[in-house]
Amino acid sequence: MSAGWKSVSERKIADRAALLNEHPDWHLRGGAPPAGVLDVSHLPTSQLSGREREIVHQDATALVHALRERRYSAVEVATAFCRVAAGAQAVCNCLTEVFFAEALQRAAELDAHLAETGCVVGPLHGLPVSIKDHILVRGQDTAAGYTAWAYRTRASRDAVAVDILRRAGAVLYVKTANPQTLLSLETNNNIYGRTLNPFNRNLTPGGSSGGESALISVHGSPLGVGTDIGGSIRIPAGYMGLYGLKGSVARMPHAGLLGSHDGMDAILGALGPIATSARDLALFCRTMLQYEPWRVEPALLELPWRQDIVDGAGIPDRLAVAIMWDDGCVAPHPPILDALKAARDALVAAGHDVVDWAPLDHQEAWELIRKLYFLDGGEEYRATLADDPPVPQTEWILGQVPNGGAPFSVAEIFRLNVAREALRARVLHHWNATAARTASGRPVDAVLSPWDPRTYDNASVSLQLIGRRLNEERVLGMLHKVEAALRASRA
Amino acid sequence: MSAGWKSVSERKIADRAALLNEHPDWHLRGGAPPAGVLDVSHLPTSQLSGREREIVHQDATALVHALRERRYSAVEVATAFCRVAAGAQAVCNCLTEVFFAEALQRAAELDAHLAETGCVVGPLHGLPVSIKDHILVRGQDTAAGYTAWAYRTRASRDAVAVDILRRAGAVLYVKTANPQTLLSLETNNNIYGRTLNPFNRNLTPGGSSGGESALISVHGSPLGVGTDIGGSIRIPAGYMGLYGLKGSVARMPHAGLLGSHDGMDAILGALGPIATSARDLALFCRTMLQYEPWRVEPALLELPWRQDIVDGAGIPDRLAVAIMWDDGCVAPHPPILDALKAARDALVAAGHDVVDWAPLDHQEAWELIRKLYFLDGGEEYRATLADDPPVPQTEWILGQVPNGGAPFSVAEIFRLNVAREALRARVLHHWNATAARTASGRPVDAVLSPWDPRTYDNASVSLQLIGRRLNEERVLGMLHKVEAALRASRA
Repeated sequence: MSAGWKSVSERKIADRAALLNEHPDWHLRGGAPPAGVLDVSHLPTSQLSGREREIVHQDATALVHALRERRYSAVEVATAFCRVAAGAQAVCNCLTEVFFAEALQRAAELDAHLAETGCVVGPLHGLPVSIKDHILVRGQDTAAGYTAWAYRTRASRDAVAVDILRRAGAVLYVKTANPQTLLSLETNNNIYGRTLNPFNRNLTPGGSSGGESALISVHGSPLGVGTDIGGSIRIPAGYMGLYGLKGSVARMPHAGLLGSHDGMDAILGALGPIATSARDLALFCRTMLQYEPWRVEPALLELPWRQDIVDGAGIPDRLAVAIMWDDGCVAPHPPILDALKAARDALVAAGHDVVDWAPLDHQEAWELIRKLYFLDGGEEYRATLADDPPVPQTEWILGQVPNGGAPFSVAEIFRLNVAREALRARVLHHWNATAARTASGRPVDAVLSPWDPRTYDNASVSLQLIGRRLNEERVLGMLHKVEAALRASRA
Repeated sequence: MSAGWKSVSERKIADRAALLNEHPDWHLRGGAPPAGVLDVSHLPTSQLSGREREIVHQDATALVHALRERRYSAVEVATAFCRVAAGAQAVCNCLTEVFFAEALQRAAELDAHLAETGCVVGPLHGLPVSIKDHILVRGQDTAAGYTAWAYRTRASRDAVAVDILRRAGAVLYVKTANPQTLLSLETNNNIYGRTLNPFNRNLTPGGSSGGESALISVHGSPLGVGTDIGGSIRIPAGYMGLYGLKGSVARMPHAGLLGSHDGMDAILGALGPIATSARDLALFCRTMLQYEPWRVEPALLELPWRQDIVDGAGIPDRLAVAIMWDDGCVAPHPPILDALKAARDALVAAGHDVVDWAPLDHQEAWELIRKLYFLDGGEEYRATLADDPPVPQTEWILGQVPNGGAPFSVAEIFRLNVAREALRARVLHHWNATAARTASGRPVDAVLSPWDPRTYDNASVSLQLIGRRLNEERVLGMLHKVEAALRASRA
């Protein structure tokens, strides 16, 4: 193995630094704190004006409203978030590509358009949105955490979701770090190194959308775009106390990602939002589907967004919620169980019907998924990493490669797919069978489960609300009710 | 190769004959006509009473209405169709499994239920429905055209669609022939031999759902269940002048089929109806989705049926229709072009907007699909056919196996999947680009194309109406308008 990857990394880091150095006034005065300072979360916003601070502490829904009413200009909103993003990079290493100049120019165009026409260009007019590295953004590199891809993957077009963001009036300004292979729940690669949790730099912000969660958690972005197969949105959102949505496969636009295993049908991922409020998740989804992405991406389902369901239509006043206390393989740490118990008590106090969820075949699911992830015996990963040493999490995941690293035969792949469908059917049956244990006699509406962040100082404890497939609106509608119950119990 | 397959065939044929011999009064008097008699379509109904004739000449929608109003009993409806089915078998060899006794018993139960409760058990109360052989029907063999599977595939459960049919009150009485491998547009296998077109026994009723189309065309079934990947519902329906719907993958229930390549994700099929009226297609789909099959089959989409769209809601008065005159590979025979021209003229006369559809990459699509059909280099087919000589169409299709019969590697399969998605995206773009050529400026609503039956004596000429994915209701709604235009032009 040559050490070519080191020089690639040095160049990429230098390029990023050069772009950040175009705005020396946005640098942290006094520089980045020493590594021993663990909680740096307040630093990126520490040099803002009062008005800038007001801007970056709002959620995306409030911001697009204020922008439409011209209470803020797009240029001042973009400037505030660029400034915080530069500070966030200094303290937690969350950015990859930086294009502040393009963003400020676009913001100025949007301001001019609104001033001239009185109309916004779309529902996200003037809203800064950050994009996970492996999603194509026209003109930007798409190294996706692989040194082998750096400087060779400048996108000639936007991903479908990015194209919609632009048409909706969003202002793109940064791409954010993802880990080598993307199969990792922390964010570390040989181009940029490790992304840190700004609330405790001994911890990870999660992964694979960990650049997003770190950036958003310190108000460096009001809305980020991530991707998720096995937790890559949910885990970083959960670790940083944010809101994330992994919707159903084929609901949100997904074309225009660069990653390993392009063309793998057996397990498919989903693109989705990370945000600081539940309503921003709906804002993102509503905007995506308003542009009818199924007209350009044939794999997508033509299912227009039903905001009325998010707002409560058809959702029972008394929810039936199952709580998954553990998955039968890994027991949550006590603080997480405490959070689950508090949620259970709050739901019961609010009149909801709570039952236990019996874990079903999680170990078998993992055995199946690690085969489906590596149908080629890991060959594609090994080839991509030929001159890019595996980071520790990559080493771990490649140690999970089944079959001694040999590829599965076509007949074996078909059998795995059959086993996958059988497992899905068992889980569905298991869900339906909860009807025998609810007060209403209908199956549970949702399952509430823990996410298992490392329970160290200053880390958040997050819960996951799970709904049925293709019921994104219903999940968000139920989330309102769950949050109302939690708020009432705290009051 | 042993000739074990011959004795399997003899046993299966003898079993079928024994079941038919339980009702000697239903046999054709004078026996089956000699092979030289080509048009035998009138024979299966030739011995019916006037009331029986009235029953079997109605479509499913009219029948369920009459059954609900007790104008007919379920027993007399079942008896009439069993009788015609027995005659159809004698003249065109369309049946596989026969279970008249079970059907008559179920019909009697339904009559008793209606008499006692005043209520039907479901929307298909008392309606006989025929089922293609490779679809699981509890208690019946599922040989699916392979001698190797005969007597080894007695189903312990129903396919999801069959279970719904039972719950909806349908009366199951026969399974119908499909060809060896199912990859054939005629219907021939080594168990039962060839299924014939009863309107011209030198011709095929099409395939792979050819037992269904032959049976329904002579009024031996009011509604049949077929399956389709590359034309297996549409072609037999087209060849026999019937209505068939190949809906989108994952819209109708699909679990519980027995066939080769179980677990293949790369190309998926759809189950759907063959019927004598357009409204019966909607009746079938509406019934299937009324029972929420996505609650038991996880691959299905939760998309309730929208009968209001079938009935015209949201469908423009002036359709924009593209006509595909040929596919750039095969030119239709002159009578088919004449039918297309007549349809074009009728649509224009009715005020619709008609443009030409430029064929796009059909040869490339075929090259791709023949790889995706045989990812294992044909190994599974060869194994299943180890003691079952290939019928001519099997010989032809196995001659299309790519790659010299070697399996594709995982990396190659992923590349084929990427190519498939790229082709789909090109076709979608091509469709959207018709907006430049329509009067309304919107893309065409539908594409009208020929099916290419052999244009021999007494064969029908059929057209195919193609809509966008997951727009089954819209296709049926547009079909109303297209048929209205054709009727008006004939008048």
